Amino acid sequence: MTWNIYLSGEIHTDWRQKIIQACKAHDLPIIFTSAVTDHEASDSAGDILGIEKNSFWRDHKSAKINKIRTTYLIDKCDLAVIRFGDKYKQWNAAFDAGYCAALNKPYITLHDDEIIHPLKEIDASAVAWTKTLEQVVEIIRYTIANQ
Amino acid sequence: MTWNIYLSGEIHTDWRQKIIQACKAHDLPIIFTSAVTDHEASDSAGDILGIEKNSFWRDHKSAKINKIRTTYLIDKCDLAVIRFGDKYKQWNAAFDAGYCAALNKPYITLHDDEIIHPLKEIDASAVAWTKTLEQVVEIIRYTIANQ
Amino acid sequence: MTWNIYLSGEIHTDWRQKIIQACKAHDLPIIFTSAVTDHEASDSAGDILGIEKNSFWRDHKSAKINKIRTTYLIDKCDLAVIRFGDKYKQWNAAFDAGYCAALNKPYITLHDDEIIHPLKEIDASAVAWTKTLEQVVEIIRYTIANQ
Amino acid sequence: MTWNIYLSGEIHTDWRQKIIQACKAHDLPIIFTSAVTDHEASDSAGDILGIEKNSFWRDHKSAKINKIRTTYLIDKCDLAVIRFGDKYKQWNAAFDAGYCAALNKPYITLHDDEIIHPLKEIDASAVAWTKTLEQVVEIIRYTIANQ
Amino acid sequence: MTWNIYLSGEIHTDWRQKIIQACKAHDLPIIFTSAVTDHEASDSAGDILGIEKNSFWRDHKSAKINKIRTTYLIDKCDLAVIRFGDKYKQWNAAFDAGYCAALNKPYITLHDDEIIHPLKEIDASAVAWTKTLEQVVEIIRYTIANQ
Amino acid sequence: MTWNIYLSGEIHTDWRQKIIQACKAHDLPIIFTSAVTDHEASDSAGDILGIEKNSFWRDHKSAKINKIRTTYLIDKCDLAVIRFGDKYKQWNAAFDAGYCAALNKPYITLHDDEIIHPLKEIDASAVAWTKTLEQVVEIIRYTIANQ
Amino acid sequence: MTWNIYLSGEIHTDWRQKIIQACKAHDLPIIFTSAVTDHEASDSAGDILGIEKNSFWRDHKSAKINKIRTTYLIDKCDLAVIRFGDKYKQWNAAFDAGYCAALNKPYITLHDDEIIHPLKEIDASAVAWTKTLEQVVEIIRYTIANQ
Amino acid sequence: MTWNIYLSGEIHTDWRQKIIQACKAHDLPIIFTSAVTDHEASDSAGDILGIEKNSFWRDHKSAKINKIRTTYLIDKCDLAVIRFGDKYKQWNAAFDAGYCAALNKPYITLHDDEIIHPLKEIDASAVAWTKTLEQVVEIIRYTIANQ
Repeated sequence: MTWNIYLSGEIHTDWRQKIIQACKAHDLPIIFTSAVTDHEASDSAGDILGIEKNSFWRDHKSAKINKIRTTYLIDKCDLAVIRFGDKYKQWNAAFDAGYCAALNKPYITLHDDEIIHPLKEIDASAVAWTKTLEQVVEIIRYTIANQ
Repeated sequence: MTWNIYLSGEIHTDWRQKIIQACKAHDLPIIFTSAVTDHEASDSAGDILGIEKNSFWRDHKSAKINKIRTTYLIDKCDLAVIRFGDKYKQWNAAFDAGYCAALNKPYITLHDDEIIHPLKEIDASAVAWTKTLEQVVEIIRYTIANQ
Repeated sequence: MTWNIYLSGEIHTDWRQKIIQACKAHDLPIIFTSAVTDHEASDSAGDILGIEKNSFWRDHKSAKINKIRTTYLIDKCDLAVIRFGDKYKQWNAAFDAGYCAALNKPYITLHDDEIIHPLKEIDASAVAWTKTLEQVVEIIRYTIANQ
Repeated sequence: MTWNIYLSGEIHTDWRQKIIQACKAHDLPIIFTSAVTDHEASDSAGDILGIEKNSFWRDHKSAKINKIRTTYLIDKCDLAVIRFGDKYKQWNAAFDAGYCAALNKPYITLHDDEIIHPLKEIDASAVAWTKTLEQVVEIIRYTIANQ
Repeated sequence: MTWNIYLSGEIHTDWRQKIIQACKAHDLPIIFTSAVTDHEASDSAGDILGIEKNSFWRDHKSAKINKIRTTYLIDKCDLAVIRFGDKYKQWNAAFDAGYCAALNKPYITLHDDEIIHPLKEIDASAVAWTKTLEQVVEIIRYTIANQ
Repeated sequence: MTWNIYLSGEIHTDWRQKIIQACKAHDLPIIFTSAVTDHEASDSAGDILGIEKNSFWRDHKSAKINKIRTTYLIDKCDLAVIRFGDKYKQWNAAFDAGYCAALNKPYITLHDDEIIHPLKEIDASAVAWTKTLEQVVEIIRYTIANQ
Repeated sequence: MTWNIYLSGEIHTDWRQKIIQACKAHDLPIIFTSAVTDHEASDSAGDILGIEKNSFWRDHKSAKINKIRTTYLIDKCDLAVIRFGDKYKQWNAAFDAGYCAALNKPYITLHDDEIIHPLKEIDASAVAWTKTLEQVVEIIRYTIANQ
Repeated sequence: MTWNIYLSGEIHTDWRQKIIQACKAHDLPIIFTSAVTDHEASDSAGDILGIEKNSFWRDHKSAKINKIRTTYLIDKCDLAVIRFGDKYKQWNAAFDAGYCAALNKPYITLHDDEIIHPLKEIDASAVAWTKTLEQVVEIIRYTIANQ
């Protein structure tokens, strides 16, 4: 049985690739997915529909087009890993967590000690809070390896 | 028919009371609800179950107890108003938005121009983005008044 | 037990009031609901959020605000009556029919012989096709009267 | 991961084939589906069950048989593209939009400027409004290409 | 808390009235409901929409109008009692049982020993098989009395 | 895309095999399924768990074991064909129809003119009433052939 | 807004009454419910349907009749409190916990330190683990008091 | 069509392997799954996230990580077999039964006569109670063999 794991959050570091590589080493039946992580491309997706001067509408069109993909991937995933980094607001990551919680999809959070308090509601619905990529990989390996 | 409106987000200003007062003036059949907004009480809710030295577990216990109330209120609400202020991480507000989106519950966001970009995914699933309390109240009045 | 009946479609004639009056005469436990039927008010609902020059965005904001009310009312209704008149596109009425069909909500259509063919998909999921207000009222009376 | 895209609406032009061809050029993992688009065959589907003199019942039988296919395809689709042309009532396309909205399925509309206003409720629940086939294809390509 | 109990099946005896009377004697908070049980009225409900010569279409229109009421009542019920008598096909009673089973609604069957075998699938999903009205009443009393 | 079609009802004639053969000739992507149709085996399934003297409990155990298979197959089917013959009570077929209706699964009935009236509720929720195997096959072919 | 709280588990002590009394002192809008807690009555409920010699069938009939009430109450509850005492197997309490977890209903467990390990899966899905009645009451008071 | 069968409960005997071997002999299209059955590994799963002194939190972290796998497997299964042995509390097995019942997933119990009474609620929602591995295998064979 194949597992479908959605990687949500932080896009300016290579945490996704590291998890994917490490899991590949364990030869596990996993399909990893994520939103479009090319920041520029993601922000300008709405321009396909014509240029908007008003930044709200530009963002609006881009975010809705991106929603096609994220809705599809989250609805199909069996587990999500949600990464909160040390920069940016990252409200979309928190939004994904709430979306998963409402659908009863298990998710793992990945973040440092410093932001435990503001993430307490999100961790309260998570199946695990991890601090390192190794922990994420080990949970995945443990969960899937001996089928 | 009574409307059930959940007020989520920012707790250190009196925006909830202002909306409630303004709607009361219109004499609309609304029950307004919200999480426990006493910051201190909310953070220490888990202490009911015994003191934890580890701050993660203290937060964890508090957040889970608070979830009893928020799950109940969001599941029963017909509309949510989600306020993002100029301070704090407010990931729980974003979490509530994702939770509403997954359940197909309509929500209105309330925030300033400055944070349009980081909130674009959340606004993309909202029925309206408002900048002032007056706009929130007027949408509610328009929606409910002439039943 | 109270019935909740949603009246959808044509807004420039008084068909709603006639059904409501006729049912009132039978003294039935019904709450009738509908979208905001003041055409002007409905079209300008989005102006609450600020004026848009672009007509698409003006319509967009208005339609989303109106969706708060229609989502609430359709989700709570036990039966819908959907009226197709001889004017206008009335795609929103067809949209409501599809919405009801997906939720397994029974609906009655009300329209003339001339438009049987273009409404065939919508009538195929309806519990009844009526041509007169009297037929609508009689179905409602028959269904609810002897509880 | 394969995408399932349902093409709804206008049947007297070749817009479906153009989208399918253009996507084929991008070599994307998509299954395109649609209702039976042979107008004659679709209208006479009910004749399988015996000839009806009454046009309402003939349409009724045909529409119900067609519903087997459309229900199956919409329930299985991950995205719908709904085309409104410049002719005919096209209430079935609006019905499909409502059906998708209730099931929380994302859909893209495809129509000209002239009919923005009557389609405002349908566009309000869409993830994108497009005016050209190129825009539809580009959204699909952007969404699916870099998996 | 009020219970909503749907009484389905046999309409040519007074079993419904007997259950209702017996429960009334126990003063229980129950709303009893059922389809329209006036056989003549039920069969001719479709005539509201105009007379059909073809008996299939007459039955079809009547059955669909009756479905408005039965869908509403079954969806709202907390328990169904389904009576199979010694006459007639009673396929609608078996249909109601299947409908309840799919929705995970508990139902009690009421029938004689003679028809145990043909009702085995229906009894297999029932919470109880009763042979007498007294048993039905006693189960209801036991279930509801000491709240 | 493969279709999954469940064949329910009458087990003492070879109607299933005829439909399957005729569809095979059209080379359609269909998986046909059904309950265990060996009458003897089906009735004695419960004996696996030990012999019961009481016929109710024997039937009960058999019917529950058979439910494992029928629940699985109906939940996975895209269309059901439900056959009512001229013998036996066939309440299980009517039960399957109700089960499909509640889950919004399309089904076709197959029965003679003589039993139109007692089957009116079941036909009212069907997508088609057929009288011959040829009609069933032709509907299936029409629906699936030109994908 | 009224809260509906289901009290599950241990029936041979008076923990339910103590919680109910303590909450009454706080004057909270709560309806407390539970299964029939008269052990004798509960075990013999199936005798309504006739005496069984075989103890399995006697238990079976009783348990199914009891299921009418417990299904109704759990489906309607907003919170469950599940008590595991120091005696008996109490598999029905664990069953209720699993039932709540699948429906995403929040539940609180109430048990001593000694049985932490065998209850770990059940506590893992709980919103809180309590050791004393006072803790249960205080969580309820905190959650509901300031509406 | 492949069947997905989840084996829940007792982990200190080889009942799973025996069922799997016996079914293999029948060459049936089945995927058997289960929780991690290595007791030591299962109990220490949470240690991946760091060592806890408090045994409640250690268990808590382990149980939540194990939940990723069991949620995935139960949600995907078509049938569960739940084994209650003569040792331990086995509340997690009862929890799985309740979880299946709420999702309307069929399950078979496997246990001795001695524990009929405490398992009556769990058997009341089961499709079969078996006492031997041979009975389990024979039910599976009967159900799946002649597709």
